[in-house]
Amino acid sequence: MKAEIIAVGSELLTPDRLDTNSLFLTEELNKLGIEVLRKTVVGDERDLLAEAFRDALNRVPVVIASGGLGPTEDDLTRETVAELLGRRLLRDEAVVRAIEARFRRLKRDMPAVNLRQAMVPEGAEVLENPRGTAPGLWIEDKDRMVALLPGPPRELKPLFVEQVLPRLQRRVSGVKMFHRELRVTGLGESHVEERIRPIYTRYANVHTTILAAPGEIQIHLRTWTEDATQAGTILDEIVRSFELALGDRIFAHSGVPLEEVVAELLATNRATIATAESCTGGLLAERLTRIPGSSNYFLGGVVCYSNERKTAWAEVPPEMISAKGAVSAEVAVALAEGVRRSLGSTFGVGITGIAGPGGGSEEKPVGTVHIALASATGTRERLVHLPGDREAIRFYATQIALDMVRVHYLYDGKPQPRRVNSGD
Amino acid sequence: MKAEIIAVGSELLTPDRLDTNSLFLTEELNKLGIEVLRKTVVGDERDLLAEAFRDALNRVPVVIASGGLGPTEDDLTRETVAELLGRRLLRDEAVVRAIEARFRRLKRDMPAVNLRQAMVPEGAEVLENPRGTAPGLWIEDKDRMVALLPGPPRELKPLFVEQVLPRLQRRVSGVKMFHRELRVTGLGESHVEERIRPIYTRYANVHTTILAAPGEIQIHLRTWTEDATQAGTILDEIVRSFELALGDRIFAHSGVPLEEVVAELLATNRATIATAESCTGGLLAERLTRIPGSSNYFLGGVVCYSNERKTAWAEVPPEMISAKGAVSAEVAVALAEGVRRSLGSTFGVGITGIAGPGGGSEEKPVGTVHIALASATGTRERLVHLPGDREAIRFYATQIALDMVRVHYLYDGKPQPRRVNSGD
Repeated sequence: MKAEIIAVGSELLTPDRLDTNSLFLTEELNKLGIEVLRKTVVGDERDLLAEAFRDALNRVPVVIASGGLGPTEDDLTRETVAELLGRRLLRDEAVVRAIEARFRRLKRDMPAVNLRQAMVPEGAEVLENPRGTAPGLWIEDKDRMVALLPGPPRELKPLFVEQVLPRLQRRVSGVKMFHRELRVTGLGESHVEERIRPIYTRYANVHTTILAAPGEIQIHLRTWTEDATQAGTILDEIVRSFELALGDRIFAHSGVPLEEVVAELLATNRATIATAESCTGGLLAERLTRIPGSSNYFLGGVVCYSNERKTAWAEVPPEMISAKGAVSAEVAVALAEGVRRSLGSTFGVGITGIAGPGGGSEEKPVGTVHIALASATGTRERLVHLPGDREAIRFYATQIALDMVRVHYLYDGKPQPRRVNSGD
Repeated sequence: MKAEIIAVGSELLTPDRLDTNSLFLTEELNKLGIEVLRKTVVGDERDLLAEAFRDALNRVPVVIASGGLGPTEDDLTRETVAELLGRRLLRDEAVVRAIEARFRRLKRDMPAVNLRQAMVPEGAEVLENPRGTAPGLWIEDKDRMVALLPGPPRELKPLFVEQVLPRLQRRVSGVKMFHRELRVTGLGESHVEERIRPIYTRYANVHTTILAAPGEIQIHLRTWTEDATQAGTILDEIVRSFELALGDRIFAHSGVPLEEVVAELLATNRATIATAESCTGGLLAERLTRIPGSSNYFLGGVVCYSNERKTAWAEVPPEMISAKGAVSAEVAVALAEGVRRSLGSTFGVGITGIAGPGGGSEEKPVGTVHIALASATGTRERLVHLPGDREAIRFYATQIALDMVRVHYLYDGKPQPRRVNSGD
């Protein structure tokens, strides 16, 4: 079965706002085995709106629309769709009462204009919306289904899941979408593609998407079938082949960010971590503490931009800084070992480098970063040359630091394969 | 003049990818005084593609399309548009040579399939694309203009600016867009709306948009006219009225983030700053060091999650922590003053609170945050109760801390108005 998504609202045709509801809607429709054929963004003008709905209903049996259900004159979705389907608009007293009750709870008077939101096309089902004043609407017309949903994502999403999904489920066949998401770091997009292309091209019924995100590559596998067991078998088989092709570069099998993988490893192993950052300016500490409960493993961190702070907070000898330079392998190691020693943590991480745009030299260009991980089994240090702007370099450096912790657990003190930085 | 934007590509109809080119294109078109009437996302299917282009060309004189210019069988934009306009596709030898040269530079063989990218609809102008193999195309057909651009944003954007913009400029009237963006913090969306609505509703020719972003409200003013002087006068007048209505809550007149405003203030005043963070986990240090050149004013920061670290790094007396609790006004002040004292900075910032989801109590629920700013004129401390999830609470807390630095310079040690936290 196929569907189209229409996002209604003139604000979505300005440079400031993007329709993001459609990503959520597409994912949910895909899970039901419904493919999205087209997405349209249209402003609050009656003729254009009518044309968009008419064309969509001529092409597909399912149309999901968001927005244009507000109380003001320029909210035209209800009227337009009713007219298009030749239905009268009737006032629904239950909706009137719900809107009045909502205003009473907020201790405000209900403006008369809100009564527009109680107008319902004849024969439509009202989808109650406890999170806002505009209810959704569900209309079946011969073989076609139309869902009209409010625009704010925090209203649209629960409304769709609770009320539209069950109605669609009753009407669609047993075909469902099955999905896996692997995440990879330390390999560029074209390298990932090169390694896994010979595998995924063998599976005509599985759709593979490779997406580049900052510091990582995301691989999506999707297949549509009625048979959950068969889908599981095929997806597992592909994942196993990808594991052989990509080795220890896969850091997640469930689409979670690297800091979450590392948090889980630290928690499971009852380990703790402390950080001493220069060029990343606290981003590593910030990523490690994004995760709820991070106080169980994150003992503390310092952002030591100045040489004096490197000495005061991480015991880096001033002579070392003058002899080797603040951006050097020795200083990265001293930062990692110093912060680990002074906090008594399982791991200490040290990062020093040049994030740019200024500060680079011929010998140490922008993007030069030294990253060290100290633990009971010794200290590993990596020198990397990272591409991109300041933001990208800082993020990528923290990604490598986190990955060094992950890889530590893979090899548990045993020799590790030599790691060559390979961005695209 | 009106335009439509068509984004071509089946990947844009999956849950993983959003067409973001259209935001850039809309902004550029708006600047020329061209309004965007509709945005369509359509997959790589010939009939659907043809329908999308035909309908758009029936509605508007300008159609800008992105994507579908690649070398493979499913890249159909060229063929579809040529057929629709009744033009033959001819091989352009200059394009062939450019593509061959590109492959030679990358030291790779050119696959024969890339020759498809040298096919040009009769009478079309080739828009050279030094950043990729697919050139853009510009087609004028009676009163209509069509630009076909490659999908990757890093190819599309410069191609549009360098080659499409001048062609459009020649054809449009002298009407241009003039734009201002104010940013406000410490007031919720509905409070901003309430205060400025009586002002902006008086200006029928200026379009006002109020957008809520994390920790701030953005106010966009747009007007379209031929007369730059007149536009400047009206926009200045509105901005001055907004300043009266919103007072010191406006932190930027040019749409820049708060850390940039604070960085500028610190640099201008040759001031320095140091941070001691608990619940924000390094986010404040990270935001202060996002700005290039931050080593001129950022002396260093500590992330002291544990009580022991608060004492070791920011000289917070252990007795104070046991008596008042780690989340208390006293500890926030001690963190700010301690880190300022030990680094000798102009400002010291201390943040301690409960970011959640766990750790809250009846007395100190999730969202309770104490923020202190220490300087030569004394220490200010604010207790706030922030709404939202862990990420929102952490961001909002750093936003308030940065704003306290900004406000310090507004009043320069003189009494400040009492600040009540007013999220929506």
